[in-house]
Amino acid sequence: MVKKIINNPKDVVKETMEGLLLANHGKIVKVEDANAVVRPSIPAGKVGLLVGGGSGHEPLFAGFVGDHLADGAVSGNVFAAPAPDQILAATKALDHGKGVLYLYGNYAGDNMNFDIAAELAELEGISTKTVRIYDDVASAPLERIDDRRGIAGDLFVIKVAGAAAAELDSLDEVFRVTAKARDFTRSMGVAISPGSIPETGQPTFEIGEGEIEIGMGLHGEAGVSREKLMPADELVSRMTDLILKDLPFKAGDEVCLLINNLGATTMMELLIVNRKVREILAEAKINVHDTMMGSYCTSQEMAGFSISLLKLDDELKKYYDMPAESFAFTKR
Amino acid sequence: MVKKIINNPKDVVKETMEGLLLANHGKIVKVEDANAVVRPSIPAGKVGLLVGGGSGHEPLFAGFVGDHLADGAVSGNVFAAPAPDQILAATKALDHGKGVLYLYGNYAGDNMNFDIAAELAELEGISTKTVRIYDDVASAPLERIDDRRGIAGDLFVIKVAGAAAAELDSLDEVFRVTAKARDFTRSMGVAISPGSIPETGQPTFEIGEGEIEIGMGLHGEAGVSREKLMPADELVSRMTDLILKDLPFKAGDEVCLLINNLGATTMMELLIVNRKVREILAEAKINVHDTMMGSYCTSQEMAGFSISLLKLDDELKKYYDMPAESFAFTKR
Repeated sequence: MVKKIINNPKDVVKETMEGLLLANHGKIVKVEDANAVVRPSIPAGKVGLLVGGGSGHEPLFAGFVGDHLADGAVSGNVFAAPAPDQILAATKALDHGKGVLYLYGNYAGDNMNFDIAAELAELEGISTKTVRIYDDVASAPLERIDDRRGIAGDLFVIKVAGAAAAELDSLDEVFRVTAKARDFTRSMGVAISPGSIPETGQPTFEIGEGEIEIGMGLHGEAGVSREKLMPADELVSRMTDLILKDLPFKAGDEVCLLINNLGATTMMELLIVNRKVREILAEAKINVHDTMMGSYCTSQEMAGFSISLLKLDDELKKYYDMPAESFAFTKR
Repeated sequence: MVKKIINNPKDVVKETMEGLLLANHGKIVKVEDANAVVRPSIPAGKVGLLVGGGSGHEPLFAGFVGDHLADGAVSGNVFAAPAPDQILAATKALDHGKGVLYLYGNYAGDNMNFDIAAELAELEGISTKTVRIYDDVASAPLERIDDRRGIAGDLFVIKVAGAAAAELDSLDEVFRVTAKARDFTRSMGVAISPGSIPETGQPTFEIGEGEIEIGMGLHGEAGVSREKLMPADELVSRMTDLILKDLPFKAGDEVCLLINNLGATTMMELLIVNRKVREILAEAKINVHDTMMGSYCTSQEMAGFSISLLKLDDELKKYYDMPAESFAFTKR
């Protein structure tokens, strides 16, 4: 049994929601009969932005509901997609006549349930469009990009989409900018120790002493290889190489960089990783506009991290740079 | 050996600094010949605010150098005080004629080295004053408050001190406000698994399966008791009870709440903790003005958390509420 500071393991999702609402001091409110939160006042005529997915990745997704970010978030059980009726309830709370953009990671359960909710919403006269995030280069080859999983690059797409949804008038336009942010984002993760499921107390995978999983997924999905732990610089070189050649990123590109903590990795390690990422990007003549670093998209107490790059153009840069504020992310 | 994503273990402090500078995009600069950073342009006539302590607690301390926060930070080796000559170098970089306030956690090594640096600074005509943070109620009885250790309450004191140092003209006034913030802050931590020292790969303490250390220090110092792991609500009740009766906090008080992740604890757990803290504070008729939650003051990959309360008066509230921006903390 992995130790956790919880009460009844069956109550973790409910109690997490209670704690989140209190921590937000009225800046988010719960949707009745759904494990979902929305901003308390959404301007009339605003395109709604709904994010969501399984619980267990905190602060993703509900931590990014706020000003110039998501308007609402719906969460399932730990590592499980939210149910269609809950997505629908959040959709109704967010629709102000301009429709709702669904933005979530590309997983079978999420895809199915958000699609069902979209059909139910349409029956009620609410327009929706969908952007599935598939930034994980390790999860499928480029030819099958829409088989790839969504990982920490979520944060870049939510940041841009939130600003776009605050500024743009039509669902089609918000969709267009959001899909571009998704298309310009690439990530890759590694793990050296597992997270664990609160309800069972069991780790999500096993890994030997001195081993690392390259390309590890956000729920402990197997990556591209299991290897002996190597020096940080060697590891970062391999990860960055795969990311850069995938889009591909090229000399003269301007990017934002996210080094995401999957849970238990120290910021000291993330900073050491950052040093090597920047050395490689400088050699490739890729300019880094901004850096985010921290625990944004986690897999419980998994030790590991991911590197994400968002390629900027003038439009994405404008939306990325806008101030934003939520429980888990604030930009002045 | 605890696994970490590093290169040569002897280089972690140097490489952490390199990664930090790159991640700050010019918003901090390194002090020559010192493991210290300062803001690149400090207004003439500003009182300088220098924070510091051992490395290994990232993002503390250097992550809080920025606008309306610290003007500089000096870091020692992992869990070791910075050397006097390095503190002096940072002091010189920060002095603009109004003197420098030293703000750091109350540990013997830090106390000695900052005091030596203060004497050396005085020889060079630089005025300094010192506020030692001793917020950890578990580390000594109230009668010996200045034997207590500084833990995550550091963040509250740095937040207030940074705003005060940006607004107030004299070292004496910045000292007065900062000392008040320190005097009005109380914290307590617990741990369920240890961090480890990068240079040795060894954990900072041992703890059995199913055990928790109540009152655990930031470097693995023994707390008040070692017990069987209990439900979160019971644990939080005990911690909050000790914190509240210490200041004491009373009905009608207004406070800020910090739930700090010592490293490997999930935000799900912190949110569950928050729910119970707020229930207890509501019963005690203590009003929570704001909540901070996250990995601010860590002990490598220690699993555990601390609860901190800052009691507000009108003056502290004014400084707490001011916008601020740094690598690890931004407030709009």
